[in-house]
Amino acid sequence: MKKQNNYSVPGFLASSVSAGLKKRGELDLSLIFSQKKAVAAGVFTTNKVKAAPVLLSQKRTKKGSIRAVVANTGYANACTGIRGMNHAIQTAEMVAKGLEIDPEETVVASTGVIGAYLPFNLIKEAIPDLVKSLSPNGFKSVAEALMTTDSFPKVSYFKGNAGGNPYRLLGIAKGAGMIMPNMATMLSFLLTDINIDSQTLWPIFRSAAECTFNRITVDGETSTNDMVLIMANGVAGNRSLNRSAIKEFERGLTDVMGELAYMIAKDGEGATTVVVIEVKGAATKDDANIAARAIGNSNLVKTAIFGQDPNWGRIMAALGRSEIKMEENKVQIWIEGIKIVDGGLMTSEKEEREAAEEMKKGQITIIIHLNQGRWKDRITTCDLTYDYIRINADYRT
Amino acid sequence: MKKQNNYSVPGFLASSVSAGLKKRGELDLSLIFSQKKAVAAGVFTTNKVKAAPVLLSQKRTKKGSIRAVVANTGYANACTGIRGMNHAIQTAEMVAKGLEIDPEETVVASTGVIGAYLPFNLIKEAIPDLVKSLSPNGFKSVAEALMTTDSFPKVSYFKGNAGGNPYRLLGIAKGAGMIMPNMATMLSFLLTDINIDSQTLWPIFRSAAECTFNRITVDGETSTNDMVLIMANGVAGNRSLNRSAIKEFERGLTDVMGELAYMIAKDGEGATTVVVIEVKGAATKDDANIAARAIGNSNLVKTAIFGQDPNWGRIMAALGRSEIKMEENKVQIWIEGIKIVDGGLMTSEKEEREAAEEMKKGQITIIIHLNQGRWKDRITTCDLTYDYIRINADYRT
Repeated sequence: MKKQNNYSVPGFLASSVSAGLKKRGELDLSLIFSQKKAVAAGVFTTNKVKAAPVLLSQKRTKKGSIRAVVANTGYANACTGIRGMNHAIQTAEMVAKGLEIDPEETVVASTGVIGAYLPFNLIKEAIPDLVKSLSPNGFKSVAEALMTTDSFPKVSYFKGNAGGNPYRLLGIAKGAGMIMPNMATMLSFLLTDINIDSQTLWPIFRSAAECTFNRITVDGETSTNDMVLIMANGVAGNRSLNRSAIKEFERGLTDVMGELAYMIAKDGEGATTVVVIEVKGAATKDDANIAARAIGNSNLVKTAIFGQDPNWGRIMAALGRSEIKMEENKVQIWIEGIKIVDGGLMTSEKEEREAAEEMKKGQITIIIHLNQGRWKDRITTCDLTYDYIRINADYRT
Repeated sequence: MKKQNNYSVPGFLASSVSAGLKKRGELDLSLIFSQKKAVAAGVFTTNKVKAAPVLLSQKRTKKGSIRAVVANTGYANACTGIRGMNHAIQTAEMVAKGLEIDPEETVVASTGVIGAYLPFNLIKEAIPDLVKSLSPNGFKSVAEALMTTDSFPKVSYFKGNAGGNPYRLLGIAKGAGMIMPNMATMLSFLLTDINIDSQTLWPIFRSAAECTFNRITVDGETSTNDMVLIMANGVAGNRSLNRSAIKEFERGLTDVMGELAYMIAKDGEGATTVVVIEVKGAATKDDANIAARAIGNSNLVKTAIFGQDPNWGRIMAALGRSEIKMEENKVQIWIEGIKIVDGGLMTSEKEEREAAEEMKKGQITIIIHLNQGRWKDRITTCDLTYDYIRINADYRT
């Protein structure tokens, strides 16, 4: 993946302002605008309690074309009933009016405290400025404006080539807590100038979301506001994509979304270590997924990782209660390539000491082989630390 | 429930010694002995990874009669294979020999680190002393010897009357982390001198476990070593129990087991607040249980409780992802009788402030009414605090 400082995609503009939603005058309201009609697709939270902006944006995205996304932080606009829905609709309307586009092509995203009403006057007052300050170079500050408990902005970029026409793909994401996306994630926006039709875009996008955002967990909590949107405006001018160009785009999209998802796990509230949990040899596809999640969501495994303790007994206990098919005496476990469990038993104290040493690196891979079948899956997570408690005990106060 | 300092049950003896399994010379090996044949029943962990003592004791308890229980702390004797099973069998054998009883009537319980082998020599050396020091007043020190990360010993006592014959029921338990029993719990022993047959005892015991130990959670983790045993030695001399005597015994047993279960939640690792989650108006029995557990196991809800923040949005989000039947706009939530949510919306900031005040008490009840049907359930849990992290990051080091 190529890196650069100047993130831009032809035909897309962005802006962000401080509307006064965050406490210390930080950026908290942002806008992404496509100057041309753009093909769009989205995946949204599967939580039965859906925020107003999720309900609205899901409906509008289904029509397949989106030109503007307005996003606020500080308030989730979830559990806010009719009043909350009116706030979302009016926000979109005002933005659409400023941009002279159809409100039906404008979607809204929110993240923050659940249950509080949006301070709508602040948003209303800020929208004219927001529209006025749109620029081709506004994306990095959008990533900043989206941050809540995030400790760094999350951006990823890819350049491809479709039949001689170069194109760009820019991804932005936010997320640090209440993270175990299911069919969706925290907020993420993908922008590309590739010329692609909805029918081609949707399956690629959906499967990229499935193996990236849907494979991370910080705390096993699925948010009411998760939303991933992609907009493709066709400005690159390429003709209809052939198979190899589609493959390249798919790889680029999966890389960008994968990098963003990794950043979210790395920035998990209070995290000191990113942990990739790989389960192999499961009897079924579901078993592999369930086992990886049982380990990735175990508070005892995650505190042990924080303590840099290769406490594999807790991994065994998590597997045992996960209701998958397993035989204790067939389990093998590796930490950073060091085999610490074989046949369900400790290999040796020497291996444990070596694994403990590896756990200081800030990023580890734990492989579990169940030896039950041919299925595998992986999940990316982080450790559970004092700071997760601090951040979440004090979140509203 | 009557309280007293001198916990004893006619016909039962107990002892405990320091075998050197814990670091600072604390009590760590204990023995309970019935001088007469005793009717017994047990419930055991449903984790597929079962400790050697669980496998052995489950098999022996099925025969319906147990005379001795030997329990060690510091080592779970789980994930220890054939060597671990031999250790469990030999421990029972040595104890049985000292007591001059059948080894098949001797069961073993262990709690502590998973995956490490028992320091069997230390146990072997301590058994003669353990047998020699049996006394009718040894039960309180057994409760102490069972403690690992527990911060207080857990004992409960009940006196009943069966057709003119007084009888006693003594319960002992341990547990503070890796607690979400499923059909069982951490270690708990119930001793009674009532005269009761297996057929009468089993359903009473099973249903009491279901509504007490199986309704607590500290961290959503089901241990490899959970075990609850009851022994009834008949020394009270009562005749066959009539319906009202059975009812009284059932109430007493449920009270004693309920009190022990409550103590485990109260002593949840690092806990500052005990939380009873009551879900009402669920569409099905399962929905009520699933909803209560989703809330009781939510790290975000539990850290908010630690922060004394009535952050009901996190309760809504937990309900929404729990896959139960629900409608956001029908949910009502009370904290300590204060209605903070009605029709899925905040009632007022005044109620929130009052609820926050109530959350300082160290014990709160949260009632959630789903308004979907007639089913209800409750779970007892605790908050998630810095000390949970400290205890579990440093557990083995």
